[in-house]
Amino acid sequence: MSDFTPALPDMRFTLQAIARVDRLFGLPAYDELSQDLIDSVLAEASRLARDIVAPTNHTGDLQGSRLENGEVRTPDGFREAYQRYVEGNWNSLPFDQAYGGQGLPWVLAIAIQEVFDAANMSFGLCSLLTQGAVELIQAHGSEEQRNLYLPPLVSGRWTGAMTMTEPQAGSDIGAVRTRAVREENGYRLFGQKIYITYGDHDMAENVIHLVLARTDDAPPGTKGLSLFIVPKRLPQSDGKPGKRNDMQCVSLEHKLGIHGSPTCTMSYGEDEGAVAYLIGEENQGMECMFTMMNNARLSIAAQGVGIAERAYQQARRFAFERIQGRPFGQPGGESVAIIRHPDVRRMLMTMKANTEAARALVYYTATAIDLSRNLPDEQARNESRVNVLDLLTPVAKAWATDTGCHVASLGIQVHGGMGFIEETGAAQHFRDARIAPIYEGTNGIQALDLIGRKIMRHKGAPALAFLEKVRGTIKALERERDEDLSAIRRSLEEACEAFEQATNWLMEVWEERPLEAAAGATPYLNLLGTLAGGWLLAEGARKAAVICAESDSSDSENNYYFSKLRTARFFADNILPASEAHAAAAIRGSAAITDIPEDYFC
Amino acid sequence: MSDFTPALPDMRFTLQAIARVDRLFGLPAYDELSQDLIDSVLAEASRLARDIVAPTNHTGDLQGSRLENGEVRTPDGFREAYQRYVEGNWNSLPFDQAYGGQGLPWVLAIAIQEVFDAANMSFGLCSLLTQGAVELIQAHGSEEQRNLYLPPLVSGRWTGAMTMTEPQAGSDIGAVRTRAVREENGYRLFGQKIYITYGDHDMAENVIHLVLARTDDAPPGTKGLSLFIVPKRLPQSDGKPGKRNDMQCVSLEHKLGIHGSPTCTMSYGEDEGAVAYLIGEENQGMECMFTMMNNARLSIAAQGVGIAERAYQQARRFAFERIQGRPFGQPGGESVAIIRHPDVRRMLMTMKANTEAARALVYYTATAIDLSRNLPDEQARNESRVNVLDLLTPVAKAWATDTGCHVASLGIQVHGGMGFIEETGAAQHFRDARIAPIYEGTNGIQALDLIGRKIMRHKGAPALAFLEKVRGTIKALERERDEDLSAIRRSLEEACEAFEQATNWLMEVWEERPLEAAAGATPYLNLLGTLAGGWLLAEGARKAAVICAESDSSDSENNYYFSKLRTARFFADNILPASEAHAAAAIRGSAAITDIPEDYFC
Repeated sequence: MSDFTPALPDMRFTLQAIARVDRLFGLPAYDELSQDLIDSVLAEASRLARDIVAPTNHTGDLQGSRLENGEVRTPDGFREAYQRYVEGNWNSLPFDQAYGGQGLPWVLAIAIQEVFDAANMSFGLCSLLTQGAVELIQAHGSEEQRNLYLPPLVSGRWTGAMTMTEPQAGSDIGAVRTRAVREENGYRLFGQKIYITYGDHDMAENVIHLVLARTDDAPPGTKGLSLFIVPKRLPQSDGKPGKRNDMQCVSLEHKLGIHGSPTCTMSYGEDEGAVAYLIGEENQGMECMFTMMNNARLSIAAQGVGIAERAYQQARRFAFERIQGRPFGQPGGESVAIIRHPDVRRMLMTMKANTEAARALVYYTATAIDLSRNLPDEQARNESRVNVLDLLTPVAKAWATDTGCHVASLGIQVHGGMGFIEETGAAQHFRDARIAPIYEGTNGIQALDLIGRKIMRHKGAPALAFLEKVRGTIKALERERDEDLSAIRRSLEEACEAFEQATNWLMEVWEERPLEAAAGATPYLNLLGTLAGGWLLAEGARKAAVICAESDSSDSENNYYFSKLRTARFFADNILPASEAHAAAAIRGSAAITDIPEDYFC
Repeated sequence: MSDFTPALPDMRFTLQAIARVDRLFGLPAYDELSQDLIDSVLAEASRLARDIVAPTNHTGDLQGSRLENGEVRTPDGFREAYQRYVEGNWNSLPFDQAYGGQGLPWVLAIAIQEVFDAANMSFGLCSLLTQGAVELIQAHGSEEQRNLYLPPLVSGRWTGAMTMTEPQAGSDIGAVRTRAVREENGYRLFGQKIYITYGDHDMAENVIHLVLARTDDAPPGTKGLSLFIVPKRLPQSDGKPGKRNDMQCVSLEHKLGIHGSPTCTMSYGEDEGAVAYLIGEENQGMECMFTMMNNARLSIAAQGVGIAERAYQQARRFAFERIQGRPFGQPGGESVAIIRHPDVRRMLMTMKANTEAARALVYYTATAIDLSRNLPDEQARNESRVNVLDLLTPVAKAWATDTGCHVASLGIQVHGGMGFIEETGAAQHFRDARIAPIYEGTNGIQALDLIGRKIMRHKGAPALAFLEKVRGTIKALERERDEDLSAIRRSLEEACEAFEQATNWLMEVWEERPLEAAAGATPYLNLLGTLAGGWLLAEGARKAAVICAESDSSDSENNYYFSKLRTARFFADNILPASEAHAAAAIRGSAAITDIPEDYFC
């Protein structure tokens, strides 16, 4: 029996009522898309995740991936689960039908990823990287490269690896030193890369590395990086994987979490050099890489949601089963399940509300991938891209992954002492979740990206456009009489005001005191994440309230909608008020950050 | 070379200027106490912690304690370090000279604990339990028991273990089932206990368990619990440890963190029953236990401070050494150490400010142990006990341990990808820190204790008295012209108002809507913790400002004081504003907690 069941009702409602996927229905790119199709895809993925993948989560953590005789072996059950995943065509969901993809929307692919990440984050990570490789080769590969690599990568028979980091080149990718040496028919690579997720493994017949390297005559920094396809096994003329390339996993990292997924140190060119195929032009590697990183960030955000959902389900089950203590204020009574204790409920509700807010933020943002590519009107595509997708991608990445950590930590706390014992499983979520704020651009980098490229490059316009959207919801809420909706509106108004103040501050300081802006970037991002989460839950609450008004609250069939409304209320009462604190930290917080000497960190 | 150096300047200043330990000088109980004595004690402990204990931290984590042939073996180096600890008389610091103690104040003992916890939290934990046993036997043991057990426990030659939890009896200690059977000369115990920290180990010649159990005719619940001394080896008439008692460590837990410290499942009475000696009267066990738990909670709070300090030092060192990226806004420049990046500085300053605030809260509260016992005036003793010690102990426990987790998590984030790799060591702090909000009463239990026993049992008076103290500081700050102090005052005023509102709310709902009060207990505690931290840092800032005004800021000798002032400013700008969010969550947050059916947790 699996102990995880994907949150289908909330996923469905969030797609429908909050992310408004119906905006995609009828677009030429999605002529067969319908709510029915979405429902059946979700249900099917859910079964695989629950029955086959989820049971590998705890055992995979205990066993970990291992390096044996130069080959990486994944934990028991991963190979089989991955085979089922490929057979079910789960990897191909959002890709071009020309290469065997299913041409379904990205938002659905990201929702599916959430399900697999929740089932087993280490497992889910593999296809996330493959999808990045597909996107990259599709956008920048030659026709020959597309024809050769995309079919097996789209299907998932081959997997991808993103190979950027070196010891001296983490966030500062321009410091990469791996050498690419030109030869007659291509390039040979020499160098060592670290932190290569699924750089080698035994789940697929080939691993395609996308490697950033520099030719000897390249300019310094990111402008001299080129991107290469480096296959573990060189494809033969028939497309099958052939001879082993000169590349090797030389060690695996011992990590805090995601033990199931191998994090490789890769060595290229210990002998004659690793055969490498240039993507695009020389020195254009960084630009190519950016294509991939945007969607990947939303996939990481989905990990935050997935791990939060998993942690919530586990804590909830424990809270219903664990008998401990008497009801508050009734010391003489019978012992009860801890779900009866107000503070436990507060923890669970905090977990639930944050998880659902993060899900709403991720799905809403992901829908803009599809809208920005497929809406018929150019201006509308542009608005979707600049004001939603670009603006909210760094927010979703950072806020949802921080939420994953926060929720997983509460999951431990709900368990009390048992939460600290590894057998319980709550601790694994806490360990696994902790990577997501780091990789694919640390959350600090996301905050700088947000205030710079995403907002101030457009002179603040995307932030103001966002504010208008929230104000639209507030206006709609003014017409409501429901007590929960009124309370939600009040909190939303306060948070809106805080965001407006902070945005004005940002526009004021950006040119003249950029260090001050940078020092406030993280609280500014937290503010926008909190507001966006509260806003989207409010949108959901409005729609749930309509259903509730027509429903019998005593019929348990309707529980979901009544709960959705109250959960939005909880968020508005308990989490939205932090907006003002975030704004204060952004606006007045830099005094003791930027203007003190380094010696003061004593 | 050790990678940890106790934060002597801040410990010293906090004791002196914030906790005001000079209030103890000249009291009859401490006739030889002086700042010089304190300084030399701190320096001495610091050397042992840095040179001998700290190097066992990472290796102890990797190796863990092991159960071999029924005996627990601690990691390499623990035995030797503990021997040095005992030889240095560190265990005996705060205890009665009649039993070999040094009669020094508790606040000093707790500061010393912080140092050893920072050096190695797993190691520091052992004496924490011994100290609890000493307090308990001293307060409730018979003269014979005191004479027999206190000298070896005070010196640390024997260690203590607190033996309460059973699978069905965690926070609900009244559910304990371990049986105590009366016989001619005492009792025999039968039962199993879990989560017994240092229940068995190889660092000392004897382990004295204090076990909660119930006689067959005892009333149900906590009223039927009796407390027993159960020695691992029965003391002979000469006081030396003799025959092995019928008790056994049957397994060790696999924990998220503090791997070095053994967490035992103990079995009592598998054969003829474990010989047990009643402390106090039958059925008075719970009352006895409470004596011990109060000080133990402050010791756990000190763990939060210690682990935060350790994490901060590690992140700071990394930030000075790690070269990555160009200065913000200067993409063409040279790569710099990441301490130059504003967001990294924000993280470090958040770590520093929270750590120092938690330290201030713990020392200030701990000083009240000593004042409440030793002030000549009864009313003053009472005020120290009720309005400071009792009020702030649960706050210090919860707020400082949450701070430990938060700071350790930021420590990982400062390291980027390397933070997630276990070799780096940042992850260990994150794992170790996570236990402190759970044990010695979960932080949720602390919050309920705060609003109930500590505030409302006195009709709110301790909270109002606290508010008056903060307002006194605000008044004093009104006279200051320094820009930092003015900013601190403004934030403190806002936070004060939030605390007053929340306290009014608490007094209003306590009788009539107790569930609502309980649902708001945690944000109320967070509010008080935040305010108390900000207040005490403000007190420190006032005194640091005096020194700064007379000092040359370019002389690095004075860095500490300039930094102290700016750190308080940072806290005021960035962390104090959360007070209003905590108040809002307490006051209006319960709507979707207490009044929803359990089915809504769907």
